[in-house]
Amino acid sequence: VRSGILTLTTDFGADGHYVAQMKGIVLGLAPGTQIVDLCHAIPPQDIAMASYMLGEVVQSFPRGTVHLAVIDPGVGTDRRLIVVEACEQWFVLPDNGLIGGVLRSFDPAGTWEIRNPELRRSEVSSTFHGRDILAPVAAHLLRGGDPSDVGPKIDYPSVPGLTPRPGFLDGSLDGEVVFIDWFGNLITDVFRRWFGRDDPRDWEVEILGQTIPAISRTYGEHPPGTLLALIGSTRRLEIAVVNGDAAKQLGAGCGTTVSLRRVGETET
Amino acid sequence: VRSGILTLTTDFGADGHYVAQMKGIVLGLAPGTQIVDLCHAIPPQDIAMASYMLGEVVQSFPRGTVHLAVIDPGVGTDRRLIVVEACEQWFVLPDNGLIGGVLRSFDPAGTWEIRNPELRRSEVSSTFHGRDILAPVAAHLLRGGDPSDVGPKIDYPSVPGLTPRPGFLDGSLDGEVVFIDWFGNLITDVFRRWFGRDDPRDWEVEILGQTIPAISRTYGEHPPGTLLALIGSTRRLEIAVVNGDAAKQLGAGCGTTVSLRRVGETET
Amino acid sequence: VRSGILTLTTDFGADGHYVAQMKGIVLGLAPGTQIVDLCHAIPPQDIAMASYMLGEVVQSFPRGTVHLAVIDPGVGTDRRLIVVEACEQWFVLPDNGLIGGVLRSFDPAGTWEIRNPELRRSEVSSTFHGRDILAPVAAHLLRGGDPSDVGPKIDYPSVPGLTPRPGFLDGSLDGEVVFIDWFGNLITDVFRRWFGRDDPRDWEVEILGQTIPAISRTYGEHPPGTLLALIGSTRRLEIAVVNGDAAKQLGAGCGTTVSLRRVGETET
Repeated sequence: VRSGILTLTTDFGADGHYVAQMKGIVLGLAPGTQIVDLCHAIPPQDIAMASYMLGEVVQSFPRGTVHLAVIDPGVGTDRRLIVVEACEQWFVLPDNGLIGGVLRSFDPAGTWEIRNPELRRSEVSSTFHGRDILAPVAAHLLRGGDPSDVGPKIDYPSVPGLTPRPGFLDGSLDGEVVFIDWFGNLITDVFRRWFGRDDPRDWEVEILGQTIPAISRTYGEHPPGTLLALIGSTRRLEIAVVNGDAAKQLGAGCGTTVSLRRVGETET
Repeated sequence: VRSGILTLTTDFGADGHYVAQMKGIVLGLAPGTQIVDLCHAIPPQDIAMASYMLGEVVQSFPRGTVHLAVIDPGVGTDRRLIVVEACEQWFVLPDNGLIGGVLRSFDPAGTWEIRNPELRRSEVSSTFHGRDILAPVAAHLLRGGDPSDVGPKIDYPSVPGLTPRPGFLDGSLDGEVVFIDWFGNLITDVFRRWFGRDDPRDWEVEILGQTIPAISRTYGEHPPGTLLALIGSTRRLEIAVVNGDAAKQLGAGCGTTVSLRRVGETET
Repeated sequence: VRSGILTLTTDFGADGHYVAQMKGIVLGLAPGTQIVDLCHAIPPQDIAMASYMLGEVVQSFPRGTVHLAVIDPGVGTDRRLIVVEACEQWFVLPDNGLIGGVLRSFDPAGTWEIRNPELRRSEVSSTFHGRDILAPVAAHLLRGGDPSDVGPKIDYPSVPGLTPRPGFLDGSLDGEVVFIDWFGNLITDVFRRWFGRDDPRDWEVEILGQTIPAISRTYGEHPPGTLLALIGSTRRLEIAVVNGDAAKQLGAGCGTTVSLRRVGETET
């Protein structure tokens, strides 16, 4: 399936010209491609954040979308570059765990190592494989090219950061903050689906000494300034302050522990 | 008229993935749409700034353009979501005054409340209606869909912040700064058209104790560092410092008063 | 050759609506144009940085690409607006040296002064020629229009900042930092081609009292924290800290001197 859509995720910064160079290469090789910037303000070398973002956006894009991600501290060494097929979409990236966020929710349908020297620019720099190797490979897939053209199929991508979680809640659970958005909302690694048939409103949340007595349905039902927990648009537990900045107010960051407890559980 | 063009305005921040999710939904439902980012760095919940920006860009876009704006502090409550037709373009947004900036210059040709459950994603979150409801509605209009499909026609959008101004000048007038651009130029709510046949060069401007003796034609006719007033590309009165930052130099912000007086008026 | 691709470079800031207005004008006049943002975070009036970026991206874009750049401190004065053809691509910009970065590597095939009043918006502001004059001219070229329609051919663009360098190395050379990227890497004005058949690994680099004993091949072959010099993706000498920020660590900025010396040269 061809969608003609490419997303780009890098740690190149929004105010540089490196991103534009990659776009130029793709548009030259696959004219008409529609390019969507996912994020270019990933902190340098922050594989975990980029991996999280990739995992979050998959279900909003149509089949055949190609996702090109370049957070690549190992550029120029012998780290592998790979193509992963998952959720009927393509991921073109270094094999350094970047694909981990996607694999939390989707199994890979195939993984290929990028080796074909004909699918790269004639002159390959030692520091910008995003432009010289990955962009041409993305263009190949966008033109409907076969993934097996890029190189040999391999077993499975490297996912060093992928720690499987229980997948259900048993009266209590510790999770952690994995992302802080522009509003200062704290996104955690606790998925809605772990609650199963439990009503999240029967759970209380503790974070940095503050207790939130129940998980709410939305922001709007509380007055401004209220600290609350809710199942957000990510289908994960989020901590927020109505019309405020929870990260600043709590002094929380990525890695901050979030403790959940079924209300009344300890009293039984 | 279909233009195939969508603009996006949000307070989601430029460095997140929420914007990419909305784009993915639109491109999946209305393939080939050309997406223009208007601004994603609107300060959280700053309806006034987003409203100003929307009003400013209308005349630069072709007929049939769809403008999707999500500054939505009431998400998840019973605030209305609406489609407004004005200036032969479409606006898809919460009914919280966001449309006010457009209505300063253009009357609405129609307003519809978004209610049709078939024009939304199958699973609607309680916190991200921009992605789950507004993006599919925008895609519907981009495909040439009828606005009456989205829900019932209503009388008029809510515009709590819309304070009508005199529309002409009578010897003197107080206006205020409504926007500060990247250069630190101060954009005011005083329109060129209010001067009528008056020559702006006959007017002096006072701001924060500084007097600017006449309204200039452009930046370039003064030496660097000069504080000046001019009718800018917005067709509004702007205060600027040649090659400098007027906001920083004056300590001015949104809401700062700007007083105009026809020169010699008090001496007659 | 038509590519249908437009790049945009401005000092308007990423969080404004001025850029969106230019895009609206282009998309209205040349529907289907694919727009790539090169950079909008150029510091106000920083012609040198924008010029550098334009020169860097040329070779990544296909023939027929139109590059529109608006860093225009002289807007509203009688400075010229021009179209330059170079490297089979088009550049639409003020004649204030912006084209200099491109001309370091490519000779202009033609230069035209923009004068035709029919290729501009019906109402031209005195402060936003990027929207009112340059955008319509870019749209004209994107539609396949002839450059001679825009105005008379002129001899050569103004390039006040273009200082020719030797083009080769003779045992030692002083260069300087011309750009600092998002990672804090220091990009210099010393091109790889100046080394000719010399192996860069035979050269040592001195910057701000620190000596780097040889030019490396890539980042990955050194431990984190190492200060190193390498030939980057720009085909220029770059100074970097592995997984770190060289600009902050050294306190270096644009203009910092970088001294090269062939190793052992003084001992012979």
